[in-house]
Order: sequence, then structure tokens, then C-alpha cells
Amino acid sequence: MAPDSVVVVGASSDPGRIGGRPIDWMRRAGFQGAIYPVNPTRDEVQGLRSYASIDDLPATPQAAIVAVPAPQVLATVEALGALGVGAAVVFSSGFAEVGGEGNAAQQQLVQAARRHGMRLLGPNCLGLFNAPLGWYPTFTSSFEGGWPLPGRIGVVSQSGAFGSYLVTLARNRGIGTPQCVTTGNQADVTVGEIIHWYAQDPAVDVIAAYVEGVTRADVFVNALNAARQARKPVILLKVGRSAVGHHAAQSHTASMAGDDAVTAAVLREFGVVQVRSAEELLDVAYVATRRVYPAANTLGVATVSGGVGVLISDIAEDEGLAMPPMPEAAQQSLRALLPYASPVNPVDCTAQAVNDSSLVQRFTEAMVEQGGYTSVLSFYAQLADVPVVGHRLLADLSAVRQRHPDRLFVVSATMSDERRRAYDDAGLVVLEDAARATRAIAAMGRLGEAFARPPTQVAASMDAIALSPAPLSESQAKQLLTEHGMACSPERLCIDQETAVLAARELGWPVVLKIVSPDIAHKTEIGGVLLNVDSEAAVRAGFDTLCQRAARHAPDARIDGVLVARQLQGGVECLMGVQRDPVFGPVAVFGLGGIFVEALQDVVLHRCPFDEQEAERMIRSIRAAAVLTGIRNRPPADIPALARMLSRLSVFAHRAGDTLESIDLNPVLALPAGQGAFALDALVQTRNPSHEVSCP
Amino acid sequence: MAPDSVVVVGASSDPGRIGGRPIDWMRRAGFQGAIYPVNPTRDEVQGLRSYASIDDLPATPQAAIVAVPAPQVLATVEALGALGVGAAVVFSSGFAEVGGEGNAAQQQLVQAARRHGMRLLGPNCLGLFNAPLGWYPTFTSSFEGGWPLPGRIGVVSQSGAFGSYLVTLARNRGIGTPQCVTTGNQADVTVGEIIHWYAQDPAVDVIAAYVEGVTRADVFVNALNAARQARKPVILLKVGRSAVGHHAAQSHTASMAGDDAVTAAVLREFGVVQVRSAEELLDVAYVATRRVYPAANTLGVATVSGGVGVLISDIAEDEGLAMPPMPEAAQQSLRALLPYASPVNPVDCTAQAVNDSSLVQRFTEAMVEQGGYTSVLSFYAQLADVPVVGHRLLADLSAVRQRHPDRLFVVSATMSDERRRAYDDAGLVVLEDAARATRAIAAMGRLGEAFARPPTQVAASMDAIALSPAPLSESQAKQLLTEHGMACSPERLCIDQETAVLAARELGWPVVLKIVSPDIAHKTEIGGVLLNVDSEAAVRAGFDTLCQRAARHAPDARIDGVLVARQLQGGVECLMGVQRDPVFGPVAVFGLGGIFVEALQDVVLHRCPFDEQEAERMIRSIRAAAVLTGIRNRPPADIPALARMLSRLSVFAHRAGDTLESIDLNPVLALPAGQGAFALDALVQTRNPSHEVSCP
Repeated sequence: MAPDSVVVVGASSDPGRIGGRPIDWMRRAGFQGAIYPVNPTRDEVQGLRSYASIDDLPATPQAAIVAVPAPQVLATVEALGALGVGAAVVFSSGFAEVGGEGNAAQQQLVQAARRHGMRLLGPNCLGLFNAPLGWYPTFTSSFEGGWPLPGRIGVVSQSGAFGSYLVTLARNRGIGTPQCVTTGNQADVTVGEIIHWYAQDPAVDVIAAYVEGVTRADVFVNALNAARQARKPVILLKVGRSAVGHHAAQSHTASMAGDDAVTAAVLREFGVVQVRSAEELLDVAYVATRRVYPAANTLGVATVSGGVGVLISDIAEDEGLAMPPMPEAAQQSLRALLPYASPVNPVDCTAQAVNDSSLVQRFTEAMVEQGGYTSVLSFYAQLADVPVVGHRLLADLSAVRQRHPDRLFVVSATMSDERRRAYDDAGLVVLEDAARATRAIAAMGRLGEAFARPPTQVAASMDAIALSPAPLSESQAKQLLTEHGMACSPERLCIDQETAVLAARELGWPVVLKIVSPDIAHKTEIGGVLLNVDSEAAVRAGFDTLCQRAARHAPDARIDGVLVARQLQGGVECLMGVQRDPVFGPVAVFGLGGIFVEALQDVVLHRCPFDEQEAERMIRSIRAAAVLTGIRNRPPADIPALARMLSRLSVFAHRAGDTLESIDLNPVLALPAGQGAFALDALVQTRNPSHEVSCP
Repeated sequence: MAPDSVVVVGASSDPGRIGGRPIDWMRRAGFQGAIYPVNPTRDEVQGLRSYASIDDLPATPQAAIVAVPAPQVLATVEALGALGVGAAVVFSSGFAEVGGEGNAAQQQLVQAARRHGMRLLGPNCLGLFNAPLGWYPTFTSSFEGGWPLPGRIGVVSQSGAFGSYLVTLARNRGIGTPQCVTTGNQADVTVGEIIHWYAQDPAVDVIAAYVEGVTRADVFVNALNAARQARKPVILLKVGRSAVGHHAAQSHTASMAGDDAVTAAVLREFGVVQVRSAEELLDVAYVATRRVYPAANTLGVATVSGGVGVLISDIAEDEGLAMPPMPEAAQQSLRALLPYASPVNPVDCTAQAVNDSSLVQRFTEAMVEQGGYTSVLSFYAQLADVPVVGHRLLADLSAVRQRHPDRLFVVSATMSDERRRAYDDAGLVVLEDAARATRAIAAMGRLGEAFARPPTQVAASMDAIALSPAPLSESQAKQLLTEHGMACSPERLCIDQETAVLAARELGWPVVLKIVSPDIAHKTEIGGVLLNVDSEAAVRAGFDTLCQRAARHAPDARIDGVLVARQLQGGVECLMGVQRDPVFGPVAVFGLGGIFVEALQDVVLHRCPFDEQEAERMIRSIRAAAVLTGIRNRPPADIPALARMLSRLSVFAHRAGDTLESIDLNPVLALPAGQGAFALDALVQTRNPSHEVSCP
């Protein structure tokens, strides 16, 4: 990121070529370090002394740029490593991105670099830049239109073209992105590592990232954690939210957990703001540079158009951003200032602001002082550029901002670039479109919540558990889960009619009968579950029916017996589960039970382990949460009991680690508040960790 | 919209004042008509001969601008009407927007104008403009920065400040909005009427509208219908999607139908594109000016960045915009042109486009010719402005566009205003942000579908039905619905135990028993429904239980008897209903039954009446439609039977008109395909149309 010398292997005299551009950029930007071009056919490149080979260099440069064809890259990396170069930026393409032999060639590159303790960026990357140093080891054409502006946003992008485009967009909008790294094939350095770097870099306050897929989960998760601890927002655009289909799902729970959903859950866990476009990435990163992240964000709106005030209210509601009304006394004093104004919130200053701009200052001051809003959005339409008025609006708002530097002030208005810079300099933020401004403000609140949230607290005893790879029957599964603190429905495993009748009498009527076999995974599909069994005769008949059905559908299945369970009633059916994700390890899922919820994909995921508080947040975050909190005069469900079970499930899965493939508790019955939650069915699939395929 | 003369009542010499600005604008813009200022204290206003009063005017102007204080407005309108002025634009505020006496004063204005056959715009409006004529009866300050540009978009806005802001935004973006009308309090002329005007105006191709609430449903609906018939897109921003709460809901169905949801359903019915922000309003309107509305829209993406290609694919999937792959043969020929390119779709031209721009032409041509895409989105990042390359990119894409004027070509790239205009002139569209471009393209497809959809076909016999205002029992309700072609579950109304037993035997076991009383609306709440009644003894006991419960909970209720119904099983529970909307009349609702769906508000609404085809579209449009079309090996439900019932319900409600308050069929059981759909419960609430409160 900041070397004192660089060798350019494959240096070109033509500043338009890949091997010529970085030299040209660095010289034009005043890079203070030594630049050593290497080119076997030239003595001089762009006015610099050039060397025939790496071996001819007069000193050991700290960094290298590799711009030679793919077949020459390995030898180049070897030579650079042998010389003791610390890091190389490899532009060359023709590696893992072309598949087949490219993969092997890339693996060789990494091995060579590691052998010499040299770090690699790329291959197949567009390079990076650190503008304050004039350090531009990149062949982007982005700077034809101007250099990156000073600022506090660090950019990292897996895609070179995207990173370059983003930097161009930022400069066009007057947003400073003085550092940018593109990681390309990520053979060595990944996006996660750069995020970690920025988390520790005092020159960076806000991290803007673009990724296509996460590879090294540990590096990535540590980076997000470091950024959160440093209170540096990570704004991330992840593309490729492809359809599920990646896991050959064996249980219904798993079939709802796509790769992208898992990544999204991890991002949520660390308070990363996920955006959907380059524009939104810049909107949020730009507003974040004000470093105001209110944990309990409330929005006050001061507008010269009542209509836009309503529009902002709509968007705020969509985003879950609270807009409480002004206190009654404050409303009265505003009404005294301007009888026609609507003083509630949005506060409509009307076009009177044109005639008396002091109104804006007094209104805005009242919103901050009396309304207590942490964020204020001022809509000035086209007034910000109107002669005289525009200048006064800025001065008045700046004055309020100076008295309240802990609040976030965003202005939505059309204005010249020059005027916008003046707002910027005053610590204000300008986003022309009111809807986009509102969304960015909402994001600041989500960041604030994430920064304020204590790290998850999980049980002290976190020893690993090694599960046997042998299949578990339902009753074995339930016993295992019960031992780890998860409540299962009261039940008995019975091996004949008479013990079943005894069990039913003891448990209470009605009961449920289920066939138990390690070889029958989805017993409902073979008619292996009988509900509403309400007499001794019915228990006897049911016992036989189940055994016959099992024999018919799975003649070779080992039958452990029939499970007799008290039929719990009157609760809400939920599902809970765990599925091993190849990148992030065990991931827990929670949702309501039933076919509707499955059709609507209304589930929430979370990396394991997590505490009960986090589990409760998850449970309350599903769209249909009203079913649990009470709807249509139904009693609220026992959410604390659900949260306890879900957290314990996550701890268990974490401890089981690689020996667990999946757990499927479906249904879990959540009884009314205070009465508990019970898993009525349990399917645990273990795995042999030696079967693990190592991910590169 | 185009008068030959205008009187300005309350004319001011100061071009900065409300009564001075329109005169200033019209003179600067070269309005060719006569302008008669009226001001009791001046002989001359802004260089024009001024008159002391309306009575002194030398001729009868076609139009008037009223810029006098509220108390003088009525006399002014009277005088203008008496003189024979055709239309007046009333800027003055202090009418319905202040409530109380303002309402009455506004009503008097309207009456005075109507008496004289004069039309009113406003009061409390910012006026309008028709730029090609220099006709600027408005006091907006928007033109300080320049006149509206020529173009084909007509703007109408209830809010003056918003309309004015939108026009400024459009001009800044180079988008032409030569006509704009703001309707203010809409005492006479409404947004709907202006939409209708634009629908018939040959100078307008696209209608951009802002509304806060719809008042005259008939005018509004006719306008949307006229616009659709003229194939003119209506792009509409409706603010104030407030919480439900407006209807004092008596049935659960109704409680899901908020005002805004009803309006949204009407907008969908006519193919109006609903947007959420000013920016999106302009994006969609601008792309729509190309007048390419593909009924079966497919998107081909040509990109210089693979990453942005994936981003576009994500957004397209969100928007339901199909991106089929290129045909295999076409892929091979593209691969021959550029081995590194990814030729599937998105087609990744890579940065090679810089070196050989003819690739872009050949790739894009192949996408249109061989891929058959109706829309092509080209992402050029910052290349559009790179010297030489940028020019060639434009020339090449223009050539393709000229050969295929029936396709939509959108470019996402950063570029100068001048370059953007060149793209515009070539019939291309530029939207810098790729995500916004994708959303706008998707909107063109929705417009195409709406334009292609045949008008709804409803039964020929549409005579009105006058329902009696007396309450209907469940069995009366079911009989009524059955007479109108809606299938209800087979059942008998029984007045004693013995007839109940006979009915159960005849219908088949198990049966359901329900108390029947015109005085008990929600019988489940008093325990008035018994399920799974499976023996004669149980029928007898159940009969008594229901009568006792009814007597306990509603001692004065008239009891008609007990309904014995065959308990249908194995289908999907749905709900259907109708609720009278005060603006749009009877509105039908469809959703799945059950508490989850209610919690998720997954319902669809439609104004009555509509045909079976439309009903089926509605049914398939709910988010959980997979439950009906087949999920988890369940058989698909009888959707045609549901659609038939829903359409018949809508026709019945339409015919019942003002005599119907609501219908609630919950549940309707949809049996597997071919086996029908049956209403298991029915609640019909009639009303006395004389109770109607007239809406102003």
C-alpha cells in the first residue's frame, strides 16, 4: 500500500499499454519512490533507466508490478521472490478465470510466492492505488478524467472494471476515494484482508466493498469484526444472488438456505450495510463519512414542499426509520412563527423559507433541540441555488450544524457542484434525491445499532463434541438434543402394543404415534405418523398400522419401535434447523412451520453460535412475526423459550463442528407465553469429517 | 392550455411577486396572446396597459390568472364568469387546505364558476405552463435556471412545489417536459382530467403524474383507460401510503384492504407504472419516450464489466425481467470473434471493446438478430467519453439501432451532457446507473403487457341487483351466492336434532355443524362451529351444544337453526371477499386463508367487475401462489374454479352496487384440480344506499 520502490516487469514505453500505464500514472502523480522498469529490449522507458532483467536491478524494490504474458509470470514471481521483493501486483490474466490448466498455474504462483514470503495481488487484477502517495500500480484508464479526490473512503473490489468505474463515479460526484484495491482472482490477498487493512488504517473511516463471492470465511469474518470494533462502516455490494440449488438439499430446512442468504446473514451479523447498486454504495458511503451513527435513529424532516415531506415519510416507513412527531409545545411555538406551517413532522416550512430564511434556522434548531431527532433531512427543492436565498439557507443550516455536531444533517436539493462543496465543507451532506437521502439516513441508524450491540455471549463450556457418523433415529436424536438443553415433546419409545398403551396413559390423551427407524428419514411420506390417537384400542391398532406401513415401504429398514408422544396443542408451529455451509460452517435457520411460510421463504439465518438475545432478535425479525407476538386475539407464543432452544441449538452445532451435517427440528411447537417450546420431530444428520473436500 | 388572451387579476409590477411572475415569464417566453393586467392602483404593469377592474377590460379574455387575497377571490371569479372568461387559474391560498371555513369558501368558488360555465384550476395551485406557446400562468421560480426543454412528456402534479421541482430536475437531466399542470386543491379540475387531456393531446407521448389522493374515481378511471387505449404510459408517484385504519373494518378481509392498496390495484389494472421517487419517475418517463413497449420483454446485456453484468442480472431477476441465454450457435460465433468473452447473457465484451469497437456493433447486432432480445442494455462504464473509443461506441450502437428501431436500446455509462445528447438524438437512452436502467427497462415490459391485454370481458347480463338492507344469515347468504353461480359447500339448514342427523347421513361423514343466526356475525368467536362431527350421537350432542352457546353469548339473537355441511378436506384454504371502497366502489380481495397469510398481508385486490382471465391473473400473482400451483409434492389446486368464483363474485358485487357493504367468503376451499372450489362460510353485509355520505 505504501512502498518506497517498485519494479515494473514488462514495462512499456507506451503509456497506453498495460505495462506503460502505471509508470505514466505514478510519474504524473509524483510518486516519490524509485521506479525500476524491466524490459529486455530497452535501456530507457518513459525517461527512466530500464533494466534487461530482474537480476540486473541495482537494489531490491519493496514492490513489483507484473505485466508480462501468463506463461512468463511464474518465472517472474520466482525471480522477484528470490530477490526479496515483499509484494507483487499481477495484472496478467490467463489463470483461474479460464479454468482447467489456469487453476494449476495459479496454484503454482501462490506456492512460489509463499515459499519466498512474498504477497500477491491478483492475478487478473487491475491493481490498486493510494492517491496521497502517488502510488498507482494500476492500468485503469479511470484517471483520464482526473485524479481521485481526497477523502476518507477506502474502496476494495474483486472486479477491476467495477472498482475503476466506482472510482470514476465517485470523482464525478465529488466524493473522495483516495485508496482503492482490486483483488481479481484473489489467489493470495482477498477482499477480506483489504477490509481488515482499512479497518486498521487511520486514513480510512468508511469501507466500500464489491464482492462476487466470499472465499476465506475466517479472514472475511475477522475483517468484519475488526471494522465493527473500529466503528468503521462496511458498505458492501454483493452480486450474484443466484437461485438456491447449490446444496443438494436433503431436508426442507436446508432447501431454504441458499449461499447468498448465508452470506447476507453473516453481513447482517456484523452490521454490514448491503446495497444493490453502485449508486447506492456511494450514497451510503458518502453519508457515512460524517461519522454520525445513531444507535436509536429518529428522523426529523424540514421541507419546503409538503408533498415531498409525505414522500419521505413513506420511504422512512419502508426502511423502518422512526419519524416521531414534534412535542406539542414545540409545535405551538413553530405555529407562532409561521401560522401556515405544518409543525408536526415532517415540518413544512412552505415557500415562506424563500422570504424569511431565518425560519429555516429556527425550525431546524427546534427540531434538534426540542424534537431531539438524531438525523435531520432538509428538502430545499431548487431553492439552494436561488440568488441570496441559497446562500442564507446554507449559512443558517451550517450554524445549526455547528451547535450540534453529533447530529446528522442531510440536504436534498438541486444545486451546483460549487454550492454542494460548500455544504460538504460545512459538515453537511447533500443527496439530491429525497428518497435516496432517506435510505442512506436509515442505513446510518442500522450501523449505529450494529456498533452498539454487545458481542454475542455464548455458554462458557464450548468443548468440541465429536458426533458418531452412524445415522441417528428420531428418538436418539431427541435424546441427544435433550441432553444439550433443547426441550422435546414428552414421549416414550415403545417396542410393543402394551408398553405403548402404558406410555399413552402416563403421557395423557390424545397421543401421536410415530414409527422409529434410523433408515426412514421422512416418515410422514410413508404414512409413518398418526395424529389424534385417543383411546387404548386406537393405540393398539395404530401400532400395528405403522409397523405394516414401514415394512411395505422400506422392507429392509431396522425398526426401533414406535414413539408415543403427548399431542401438544394450541401453539404455533415453527421450524428450526442447522445446515453446514461449505464456507461459513454451521448456519442456523428459524421460521414458522407450514407450507405457506415455505412458499414465502420467510426464514432467518445466522452463523453458529449465538446467544439467546440474538436468537430472540432473529425470531422477531421474520416477516410473519406477528403470528408469534399475538394476532387476531391469539395469545403471544413463548418467544423466550424458542430463543433459548435456538441459541442452544446453535451452540450445539458449533461444538459438533465438522461432525454435523444438518439438524432439522420441524415442527417446534411454541406454546403460549410461559408454557415453553418443544421439538415434536428431530432429524440429525452427522458426517464423517474426513470426507471433507478442502476448499481452496 | 392554449388561450389567445389572459387577464391577470392582482397583477404586480414586481416580477418577483406572485401577481408579477406569470406576466414576466410570458413576456420573456414570447407568449403571443393578449395580456391584460388588472390592478386598481396602476395604469401600467411591466410595460403593459393595466386596467383598474375586470369591468374595464377592452375584450373578453379566454383565460384568467387570479392572484388576489382569499377574501377577494369569490368576487373576482363571479366577475370573470359574468364576463364570459372560459377558465381561471387561481393561485390564492386560504381555502380547503386550511379546513373549516376554507371548505365552504372553496365550495362557493366552484358553484360560482359552474354557474357561469367557467373552469377553475386550483385554488392554492402553482399554475401550469405550455412551453411551446410561451403560456406560463404560474408563479414558480423554476425557470430562473432555464426554460423547460422540448420533449414529449406531459407533467401533472397535485402539489405545486413538487411539480416545479420535478420540472427543474428534468431540465437538469436534459429531459424535456414542455407541459406541466399543478392542480392544488382540485376544486374543479383534477389530476385525472389532466391525464385525460394528455391522453388526447398529440404533443404528449408519456404522462408523468404526482398525486396525494384520488378524489373523483370516475374521472380518474376514464383517464387511465383513455391513456391505455392511446398507448400512452402513465408513470405515477402516489405519496401517502399510510397505515390502514380508514375503514372501521368489520371483517378480516376488509381490514387488509387499505385505501392505498385499493388505489394501487386500480393503477395496476390500467397498467400505470407506480414509482417511489422523483428520480424514478423521470427515469421511467424518459425511457418511455422511446415508445418501445414490448409485451413480452426480454433483456440482452452487453457489458465491458462482468461484475456489472451480474449486478444487472440480479436486478432483472428482482424485477421479473427475463434474460434468456443467447442461442448456442450465436454463442459460438461470438466466441470466434473474441475467445475471452463470455457470450451467454450477459455478454461480456471485456475491455477489448476499447481496442476494437467494431466488436460492440457485432456483439449487439448478434444479440438483437440471433438472441431476439426486445431490450438491450449496454454497459460502457467510463468508456463512452474516452477519446476516439467513445465516438466509435456511439456510432456503432447507433447503426444497430437504426436497423432495429422496434427494439429498446439503453446505455449505462458515465458521459458528458453533450455526449448524452448525441445518444439521445440517435434514438438511444442513457441512464448512468445500471440498476436504475434495468428497472426502467422492466417497466417498459409491464407497459407493453398492459397495452396488449384485452379489456376485461364480463357477463352480458349486468342488470343492477338491489339487496335488501336486512341482515342475511349464513345460509341466506350462501343461497344468494349460489344463485349467482358461486359454489358453496353442500349443506342443509336444520331446525332440530333429527333433521340434522338425516342431513348428515345424506351429505356423508364427517360433517361440520354451525349455528345460524342473522345476529351472530363471527360465529367462531362464540364457539359456534364444530368440526369433525363423525357420528349420529355427535350430531345430536353438537346441535344442543351450539344452541346453548348461542343462548349464553347472545341471548337475544334470533336462531334460524344449525347448518349441517359435509366437511370437505384435502384442499387449500383461501379467502375471497368484497369491500365497498368510498372512492372506487366495490373492490374484490383474494388471498390464501390462515393466520400466516394475514400476518404477511399477502392479498391481491381488484375493482369489480372483472372476468375469469383477470381473476386467474390475480390468483397467480400472490406471493404464496406456489401453495396453489403445487409445492412439496402436493397436487395443484383447482385454480380455474377459484377464478370462476372470484370473477362471479366481482360481477355480483358490481351489480349489487351501493346496496352491498361487504362479502366475506372465508374459507373458500380449493380442492385439487378438476374438483372445484367451495365457499365453506359466507358473510354478506348489505347497506341502505340512502345512508350514503356524498364525497365532495
